[in-house]
Amino acid sequence: MSKGRRGSPDVPGLVERARAGDARSVARLISLVEDASPDLREVMAALAPHAGRAHIVGITGSPGVGKSTSTNALVAALRNEGKRVGVLAVDPSSPFSGGALLGDRIRMQDHALDREVYIRSMASRGHLGGLSWAAPQALRVLDAAGCDVILVETVGVGQSEVEIAGMADTTLVLLAPGMGDGIQAAKAGILEIGDLYVINKSDRDGADQVRRELRSMLALAERAEGAWKPDIIKTVAHTGEGVDEVATAIERHRGWLADSGQLQVRRTRRARDEVEAIAVTSLREQWRDVHERTELDELAERVVAGTLDPYAAADELLAATPH
Amino acid sequence: MSKGRRGSPDVPGLVERARAGDARSVARLISLVEDASPDLREVMAALAPHAGRAHIVGITGSPGVGKSTSTNALVAALRNEGKRVGVLAVDPSSPFSGGALLGDRIRMQDHALDREVYIRSMASRGHLGGLSWAAPQALRVLDAAGCDVILVETVGVGQSEVEIAGMADTTLVLLAPGMGDGIQAAKAGILEIGDLYVINKSDRDGADQVRRELRSMLALAERAEGAWKPDIIKTVAHTGEGVDEVATAIERHRGWLADSGQLQVRRTRRARDEVEAIAVTSLREQWRDVHERTELDELAERVVAGTLDPYAAADELLAATPH
Repeated sequence: MSKGRRGSPDVPGLVERARAGDARSVARLISLVEDASPDLREVMAALAPHAGRAHIVGITGSPGVGKSTSTNALVAALRNEGKRVGVLAVDPSSPFSGGALLGDRIRMQDHALDREVYIRSMASRGHLGGLSWAAPQALRVLDAAGCDVILVETVGVGQSEVEIAGMADTTLVLLAPGMGDGIQAAKAGILEIGDLYVINKSDRDGADQVRRELRSMLALAERAEGAWKPDIIKTVAHTGEGVDEVATAIERHRGWLADSGQLQVRRTRRARDEVEAIAVTSLREQWRDVHERTELDELAERVVAGTLDPYAAADELLAATPH
Repeated sequence: MSKGRRGSPDVPGLVERARAGDARSVARLISLVEDASPDLREVMAALAPHAGRAHIVGITGSPGVGKSTSTNALVAALRNEGKRVGVLAVDPSSPFSGGALLGDRIRMQDHALDREVYIRSMASRGHLGGLSWAAPQALRVLDAAGCDVILVETVGVGQSEVEIAGMADTTLVLLAPGMGDGIQAAKAGILEIGDLYVINKSDRDGADQVRRELRSMLALAERAEGAWKPDIIKTVAHTGEGVDEVATAIERHRGWLADSGQLQVRRTRRARDEVEAIAVTSLREQWRDVHERTELDELAERVVAGTLDPYAAADELLAATPH
């Protein structure tokens, strides 16, 4: 390492090796951004020129629809096309923090020895159980490392479906027959976020009915002229049936995004959210100091005493914030 | 009205009348803060010197434990003691926005004609289905209007239990026998937030078992020396049994809060959260303008282009923020 200081990583070297396809360096960079290490800023600055190439595909669906199997099958299909693939599995319900790369590789054994597949799981540590705040950063690492496609897989609980759509270029919603009341049970929200609907386990009874229901629900949804018309594809993920078709549809959506200008629109919106979140977090850190009394503490006491109202206090706080 | 401009309310007059016990003025003030009207700041400034007297009691519990009935019975018990009572019912699942005072009064018919009871319901419009951002403001109105006790009732789903504890001086957790696996089913989180546990429907089988389980769970929880030891009280809300005891326990907790200094600690923490949230909201409004291209839009485009990383962009955003 060019930098000899203990614990201080050689960031440019790591980025270079990650881009050359070194899985250990990719893993190390993700750990650095996940742990919000002091080197985070250096890492992000070093990644910036190399990011923006990957196609980010969000995969969501209720537990039981076969999300992991589908992701696995899709990785195989994309690898057959010679693509470098990243997988980021976000589990909002997991109490464990970012998984080790070794554990992740064992989890998806089919691809464990494939040098062109990076697999990483993270627990959600974000606000209110949503997607991990570190997820956009981890995506940037996988992107800069030369992944052509990054699959972001999350359990479709509550808000995370909407959040994943906010992070992805293409959102794939997985359904399966026999899941309670079918898509009636699925939240209405999925009709707004899906670019692509996949009915997995379509060898089971009821797959056609799910497709019919989904079609009529999508037909009812209002769409602007020239808007994307979501595909509906039936698969049997464990045999691989229909999965190539999914890969093709993803590619087709990517083409539409680029041609329509929507890719730029979505990515700019995402970058805006990310920059804003970082700015707010940085202010919060400035405002709250666990070791000493801050301006915010003093203002709060004046609010409690009734000598200041909270809006005037917020004005004073902002006026006193250096930058 | 002293201010003749149409649509511009006479805020000092409203505050004066609200303090004198005029329910219409209380309702009007809450509407002004709920709607984030241009007069919000004037309202908050006018209320500040008069707030801080009320004892804020959060009431939470799973659906089916008898929350509304218990709140109703508690209002009656507090009215018997001659107290002026405010009720703020927050329904995080409700798609409707802040309810009308008339509808609210009908909802709690027992107290509909009592001039010393203010009842207000609000839907949650906050982030991710949490408590309404307007709730702290509405509490301030009820507080300044001279309520001795304000009951904040919310459905105990997900995060709202924790949020309610953050807003209240005293948090009351309602349980009932026969709710699935009893308190095992209740999230472990309730053991950290409850100042007072009420086992409602205690005329039913299983109430003593719930109490035993709760006792042993609370005994296991580590508490600092001098910390409050939560009461467990059995009630039958619809007959009023045990409800006076709840009112007494609330009063006793209020005394402990004042004597231990915890009242000041909790209220300062709350004011800090509130001031911070207002400051962040005000910055977000500055950063995002629906009508024109902002600094944030421009920075986001540079991040997408790869010429700037998101951390450097956040620094630039903060540097460019006037105040």
